[in-house]
Amino acid sequence: MNPPIVTLLTDFGSSDHYAGAMKGVILAICPDARLVDVSHEIDPYDITGAAFTLSQAWSCFPKGTVHLIVVDPGVGGTRRALIAEAEGHLFVAPDNGILSLVSPAIAAREITEDQFFRKPVSQTFHGRDIFAPVAAHLAMGSEPAAFGKAILDPVILPISKPIEKNSGEWVGIVLRVDHFGNIVTNFRSHFFVEKCAGEFEIRIGSSVIVHLAKSYNEMTKSELFAIAGSSGYLEISVNKGSAAEILDCAPGCQIHLKRY
Amino acid sequence: MNPPIVTLLTDFGSSDHYAGAMKGVILAICPDARLVDVSHEIDPYDITGAAFTLSQAWSCFPKGTVHLIVVDPGVGGTRRALIAEAEGHLFVAPDNGILSLVSPAIAAREITEDQFFRKPVSQTFHGRDIFAPVAAHLAMGSEPAAFGKAILDPVILPISKPIEKNSGEWVGIVLRVDHFGNIVTNFRSHFFVEKCAGEFEIRIGSSVIVHLAKSYNEMTKSELFAIAGSSGYLEISVNKGSAAEILDCAPGCQIHLKRY
Amino acid sequence: MNPPIVTLLTDFGSSDHYAGAMKGVILAICPDARLVDVSHEIDPYDITGAAFTLSQAWSCFPKGTVHLIVVDPGVGGTRRALIAEAEGHLFVAPDNGILSLVSPAIAAREITEDQFFRKPVSQTFHGRDIFAPVAAHLAMGSEPAAFGKAILDPVILPISKPIEKNSGEWVGIVLRVDHFGNIVTNFRSHFFVEKCAGEFEIRIGSSVIVHLAKSYNEMTKSELFAIAGSSGYLEISVNKGSAAEILDCAPGCQIHLKRY
Repeated sequence: MNPPIVTLLTDFGSSDHYAGAMKGVILAICPDARLVDVSHEIDPYDITGAAFTLSQAWSCFPKGTVHLIVVDPGVGGTRRALIAEAEGHLFVAPDNGILSLVSPAIAAREITEDQFFRKPVSQTFHGRDIFAPVAAHLAMGSEPAAFGKAILDPVILPISKPIEKNSGEWVGIVLRVDHFGNIVTNFRSHFFVEKCAGEFEIRIGSSVIVHLAKSYNEMTKSELFAIAGSSGYLEISVNKGSAAEILDCAPGCQIHLKRY
Repeated sequence: MNPPIVTLLTDFGSSDHYAGAMKGVILAICPDARLVDVSHEIDPYDITGAAFTLSQAWSCFPKGTVHLIVVDPGVGGTRRALIAEAEGHLFVAPDNGILSLVSPAIAAREITEDQFFRKPVSQTFHGRDIFAPVAAHLAMGSEPAAFGKAILDPVILPISKPIEKNSGEWVGIVLRVDHFGNIVTNFRSHFFVEKCAGEFEIRIGSSVIVHLAKSYNEMTKSELFAIAGSSGYLEISVNKGSAAEILDCAPGCQIHLKRY
Repeated sequence: MNPPIVTLLTDFGSSDHYAGAMKGVILAICPDARLVDVSHEIDPYDITGAAFTLSQAWSCFPKGTVHLIVVDPGVGGTRRALIAEAEGHLFVAPDNGILSLVSPAIAAREITEDQFFRKPVSQTFHGRDIFAPVAAHLAMGSEPAAFGKAILDPVILPISKPIEKNSGEWVGIVLRVDHFGNIVTNFRSHFFVEKCAGEFEIRIGSSVIVHLAKSYNEMTKSELFAIAGSSGYLEISVNKGSAAEILDCAPGCQIHLKRY
């Protein structure tokens, strides 16, 4: 029997007690839990960014892992609290769309059984008082059904997909900019390879990219290029530099792709 | 028998080897220790900030946890090294007031038995050479008494409490600004609720706050409000924004509270 | 039998899924692994900085620890992937000089046996697809020889040592600036003590340092001083302040030492 794993993904930052308090609550309930930080540096309230980060991390973990995700601008209000299941993984999160990029589709429950909560429940820190203890009890082996009833309408974010404008011309967007300044587009790499096997042109603002690289360092230092990213999406990068800074672009910026 | 837990709270930041070196020293002595970061992003030398962060985190952990706190501008000088006990928790820290907000009161010992230290002891990194090995030996089950004699005069920081200026008028301070820009005041929430059940006015600089919210998102985006924080203190916040930035205030700033 | 330890040292930052994905991959292969972050805040592509950080951290851990180091600007290109051994510790890293400061000398192997890799292997994230699974298999007890053949020519960075210009006059450099602004020089503390037991003068830019301190707080707040650092090197510091900011210097800056 492997020790239970609980991952943590929040926008709490690293300077406060928030993540530490959640970990203490988990260990007080489930002393054997292996706590693994995915990130606490999601931009404050950035549900889309958290959804993307989660989508890239969760399936690397073994089945049975409990993923605790707290980016929760609606804390204390009317948003529901969820347990979700997908592919043998469990997710504990506010119902604000943060699980939208977990696929295949999740089976969700609303957390209502307050005997699992830390009392008194604060108005502003459900991470500590609701989500952490629920995750810990799941890690201890409690069944999801013990926490509340199944729901069929969890919040799903509209996830932007590229649109074909004309034959061989698409408009997509920047999905994410990473720590290095690599630009993750919403064009799937296999779509790109299939559609643009020959020459292509990517335009972001007034910049044009025409090279597809196999590795970062095959290019000179200042030349922008496309590359099949590790996320499954096409990325725009530059060798040892920040493509996002050069292109002055951020999540949501438009990307024009043309096949020749 | 649960595995021993050692938490870490420092101002070492995350870019150097300092926290990692301490963890290595602990695991070399106590291979079963569960290491949990509370924070390494305390502002350099900010003993008060660390004391607040510790006060909010420690009691979330199970009894028996060893809390290792190293914010230590006096390292290598004459300040003492401490082991303290409170409510079945153990604390290892420099004697500089960093344990002032652990309550109920701590029982403290001066660490003097240098057979537990990593040799040679450096002049500038007692975290690695004294505090980490002592914490690890405590996690292994060594008795606090083995490390030195009880002392009755650990350094206690003066912790500012609100002062009643006139009947129904108090002056308090900003205790802490968190990652989101929420302002933690030194007014206890239950004090506020008891004294200001009806209308009130909070003044910080030239700004006036008159709303008490139950959740962040019941307010519009730019409106400042008071809210019962998860820390037990009244907080000043704004929905999806930084109250501290809007009010341009930092720990120590004055807060005027008036009951109507 | 102690649980296996895997340390992680990267330039991935903390805002993306990169470190979390690697941890998931490790735990999926080696569920008992104790994962310990040394740092993910190495400056992007800073191989020298990572080499220094590793050199200060690795030997604090117990023998048998697997150290996973991924600062890898050459990912996807022709650089080799390495397993190295030193003093009973194992290292998994790209062959770019990042192990140069591990001493005594390492015994290295090129990782070629791709049955250990995560498939498909991406072009841009060998941390997840090659280095993490190899580290996990080593933590599970696989022999280094199973991963590939010994090599005799791992990349070694030229590490700058102080040069004697005239009798009693040396020129060294800034090796590292830490989170606090302490300047780590490339003068070994024992060399300094031996050569400059009496009076000395250190010049950085137009600033002159003539004091050797035993602790940070024996000096007044604005006075620069030399101190025997915990790293084994002489450091330049200032009490509760950033020497690097005062001196406006960074790794590589020249340091002139004169004995009187």
